[in-house]
Amino acid sequence: MAEQFLTADGVAPLLKEIRHNPLLWLLVLVPVVLLAQLFKPEAHVLLFVLSVGAIVPLAALLSRATESVAAKTGDMIGGLLNATLGNLTELLIALAALRAGQYVLVKSSIAGAIVTNALFMLGASFLVGGLNHHVQEYNRSNARLQAGQLFLATIAMLIPSVVVGADTTFTQTLSMGLSVLLIVTSGLGLVFELKTHRELFTSVDHAESDEVEWPLVLALATLAGVTVLVALVSEVFVESVQQAATALGISPTFVGFIIVALVGGAAEMASALSAARKNRLDLSVGIALGSAVQIALFVAPVLVLLSYLIGPTPMDLQFWRGAVAMMIVATITASLVTNAGRSAWFLGVLLLIVYLIFGMTLYLLPPRI
Amino acid sequence: MAEQFLTADGVAPLLKEIRHNPLLWLLVLVPVVLLAQLFKPEAHVLLFVLSVGAIVPLAALLSRATESVAAKTGDMIGGLLNATLGNLTELLIALAALRAGQYVLVKSSIAGAIVTNALFMLGASFLVGGLNHHVQEYNRSNARLQAGQLFLATIAMLIPSVVVGADTTFTQTLSMGLSVLLIVTSGLGLVFELKTHRELFTSVDHAESDEVEWPLVLALATLAGVTVLVALVSEVFVESVQQAATALGISPTFVGFIIVALVGGAAEMASALSAARKNRLDLSVGIALGSAVQIALFVAPVLVLLSYLIGPTPMDLQFWRGAVAMMIVATITASLVTNAGRSAWFLGVLLLIVYLIFGMTLYLLPPRI
Amino acid sequence: MAEQFLTADGVAPLLKEIRHNPLLWLLVLVPVVLLAQLFKPEAHVLLFVLSVGAIVPLAALLSRATESVAAKTGDMIGGLLNATLGNLTELLIALAALRAGQYVLVKSSIAGAIVTNALFMLGASFLVGGLNHHVQEYNRSNARLQAGQLFLATIAMLIPSVVVGADTTFTQTLSMGLSVLLIVTSGLGLVFELKTHRELFTSVDHAESDEVEWPLVLALATLAGVTVLVALVSEVFVESVQQAATALGISPTFVGFIIVALVGGAAEMASALSAARKNRLDLSVGIALGSAVQIALFVAPVLVLLSYLIGPTPMDLQFWRGAVAMMIVATITASLVTNAGRSAWFLGVLLLIVYLIFGMTLYLLPPRI
Repeated sequence: MAEQFLTADGVAPLLKEIRHNPLLWLLVLVPVVLLAQLFKPEAHVLLFVLSVGAIVPLAALLSRATESVAAKTGDMIGGLLNATLGNLTELLIALAALRAGQYVLVKSSIAGAIVTNALFMLGASFLVGGLNHHVQEYNRSNARLQAGQLFLATIAMLIPSVVVGADTTFTQTLSMGLSVLLIVTSGLGLVFELKTHRELFTSVDHAESDEVEWPLVLALATLAGVTVLVALVSEVFVESVQQAATALGISPTFVGFIIVALVGGAAEMASALSAARKNRLDLSVGIALGSAVQIALFVAPVLVLLSYLIGPTPMDLQFWRGAVAMMIVATITASLVTNAGRSAWFLGVLLLIVYLIFGMTLYLLPPRI
Repeated sequence: MAEQFLTADGVAPLLKEIRHNPLLWLLVLVPVVLLAQLFKPEAHVLLFVLSVGAIVPLAALLSRATESVAAKTGDMIGGLLNATLGNLTELLIALAALRAGQYVLVKSSIAGAIVTNALFMLGASFLVGGLNHHVQEYNRSNARLQAGQLFLATIAMLIPSVVVGADTTFTQTLSMGLSVLLIVTSGLGLVFELKTHRELFTSVDHAESDEVEWPLVLALATLAGVTVLVALVSEVFVESVQQAATALGISPTFVGFIIVALVGGAAEMASALSAARKNRLDLSVGIALGSAVQIALFVAPVLVLLSYLIGPTPMDLQFWRGAVAMMIVATITASLVTNAGRSAWFLGVLLLIVYLIFGMTLYLLPPRI
Repeated sequence: MAEQFLTADGVAPLLKEIRHNPLLWLLVLVPVVLLAQLFKPEAHVLLFVLSVGAIVPLAALLSRATESVAAKTGDMIGGLLNATLGNLTELLIALAALRAGQYVLVKSSIAGAIVTNALFMLGASFLVGGLNHHVQEYNRSNARLQAGQLFLATIAMLIPSVVVGADTTFTQTLSMGLSVLLIVTSGLGLVFELKTHRELFTSVDHAESDEVEWPLVLALATLAGVTVLVALVSEVFVESVQQAATALGISPTFVGFIIVALVGGAAEMASALSAARKNRLDLSVGIALGSAVQIALFVAPVLVLLSYLIGPTPMDLQFWRGAVAMMIVATITASLVTNAGRSAWFLGVLLLIVYLIFGMTLYLLPPRI
């Protein structure tokens, strides 16, 4: 079939998508940032801003390509692909930071992604949905499953932080063991969701159907190409972020927790909000909580295990206590709020205000804490 | 209309109310305490006991007058009035303590009012209701909304207490920002409850209808006059409480947390229990949790902002950790317990025992902790 | 009636039970361990292993005898008997440790029993049930009642651990007061469950009906005889456990928290799993959470009060923070998970993984923490 080779014709859906989606026009920043890095390696603030601007459309393309591949490969493998590659942008940024040994950035971006997904993305979806619809109902089985997994992951991340006076060996062995348990849980969760009890989660699976599907070969090529680009731009981002933050007077924690999380999740945010507007809150909740669960149960432990291979030293799962507290509060809040299976705009406000409280605290924190 | 002027005839409903309500006979203590303050300013224990005895009936009158004004001004403005003046007694006592710079008393009375409303008032309502009715059902939409707001407020109060090693400027700027966010939340909550989604909360709004309504002019005059009296008696109370506590061997924390909260909330307690007995648990839950929400989302942040105008130094939202822990436990307990929308006597026992645990701990605490 | 005297014939049901239940063949270890203690008092590891092996079948017999007596004495007294003697094995082991002044062992076995029942026993029941049945429903009134009581008990155990800088007198008076409150709550809970609102809990009460009932006199004799044997073997166990743990390189906390809890609860575990397999999840949840509640609200406070009589010094309710954190997490997890009244295998996995996380942490902990 013609689809087997990527011809000029085959690229047509991609170009059409770019023409119609203004967000993707930002792709022009990708070559700009790579050139700027080459010729102006010391302009940290410029590089930081450009790389942020370049990652957002790349992340959107990446998630679009992943979905297209998933749609072509059937429900099981598709679900598996979405689950592993759904947060590829976050993973690539974190990998760049891991290679550079910036473990504080890695950890705050993990914690921040969980909190941002569970509070900001969910809250914005509820608010946007609620402004367009009086009361919205959604399948709470899925919300409960995700909240339960998220709760388990925050417990796992709590433990190394509360065991006081333990030595490094203990923390590292424990983090290793916890990472294995988290990945196992994540795998069993997929078996539950995609195989043994898929009938409980149907409304979420078949929701993305109003987009034109890409041919498989285009989707795969985009996936591969964009992954390389995200990896390159992430390098620039990670190298510039520290000094840019200092120059702009922002604490590195704020950058990792809030900015990286918002940048990395921009594409999913767009999907979640659009679904909420169309009264498909099932999908919004699935994206927001599902993404938080992926970061917590898959990305974070994979980074811990990879740190033994590519990091300067092994990374553990010991977070600073404030981050742990915020993850726990975010999880409990999301769990309480999704418990009823109904939503109105004020629930979104509550979630967003909790996120604002966290953001404000991190912004005001003196840099050296 | 004749109602426009306050004649001897116009005062009749007030006098009738006083005749029929033995609690209001305690009003005789108001002149007694003011005279005692004038002639025996050193009799701290006496002044303390008298002022407690005088505040209780004044608070009852104040809440009666607020409700009468609210009933006359229509649902929207009435709801707004109830929400802002519903805890006027607590606010006036706290203002007196604020002016005197007694921030420990202010803070423990805020924390205590939240805990007392969420555990003691709710628990006593469930118990009294449950002793008279086998199983009681109530509208859980309202309970959930209140529990959600309460949860948000306790998170806001948790943050300044857990960020370790921060300096005063940080804590104060943060407290200021948090206070603004809390008041905004409280305002949006009223829009939700009284305007956009009022149909979800109807049973609570129209419940207080079995009392004779006062003419508007009487209600307004009572509101104004009693406010002045409560303010005066609160001064006496705040000046005497510290030394009285020392003389009686009670820790100041216990006084603020338990005694002030019970005194300030006595009027609402009476309404909540009476409603529970009449199987109108919607109303009881609304009063108990609604009052806790008002203290947390309105009274506390208003006091922080006012401290810049009338306090000797700015007040922050940093509570001692035990108080934060108790607020969080109270909120989670109330949230779990009201989640089902059904009640029986044993649920009331559980809430009361948690309150007893807190009270006993505070009572046993050595004074200098 | 012939039943009034324990003849060779009367013992027949006991012997038949022993023949048909391979677990009870371990009873042969009872004389072995007692003889070993006499002749090899220094073989700690051997004594430890033998006593563990002997307690398991004794606990099974004890719970069988308690149920038989309960079945003969009517619902009220039977329920009361089950509630007080249901965790007799745990109580006897803890009493032996109490007499020996091993308060760390007592406390970690209490905390461990709560965590093991709420996570491991409940999780294993959900998993075993879920592997045999697609989705299982159960009466959530009972689960909620137990979760509520468990939550209250963990609050009570949290308090003495978070009040920092308090002196011993304070902690001891507080623990005494808390113990009285817990026993009162437990008593009122029984009144609620067995008397005033028994119709809410029916499915659990009448579930154990497929076993042949023993004559009363046999049941009473077995209860008395086995109690003495458990007490004797527990002495051996408590004396040997410390040195055996050191010899095997296991931390004493792990022994108390995990091993004692699993050994003491083996009999209930067997009942809970068998019920789950037969799709009687009501019964499994009732056994798992009910047993945790009994330990927390009855066994623990009774041990505190008894420590004034038989311990070398009074015991308090102050646990190390990790134990408190684990009890709270276990309670919240069990509460969230049982909230829906429905179960599938993955819920069991979530509970078991949380238990594994705790177990792994305790196992890896350096001995001197």
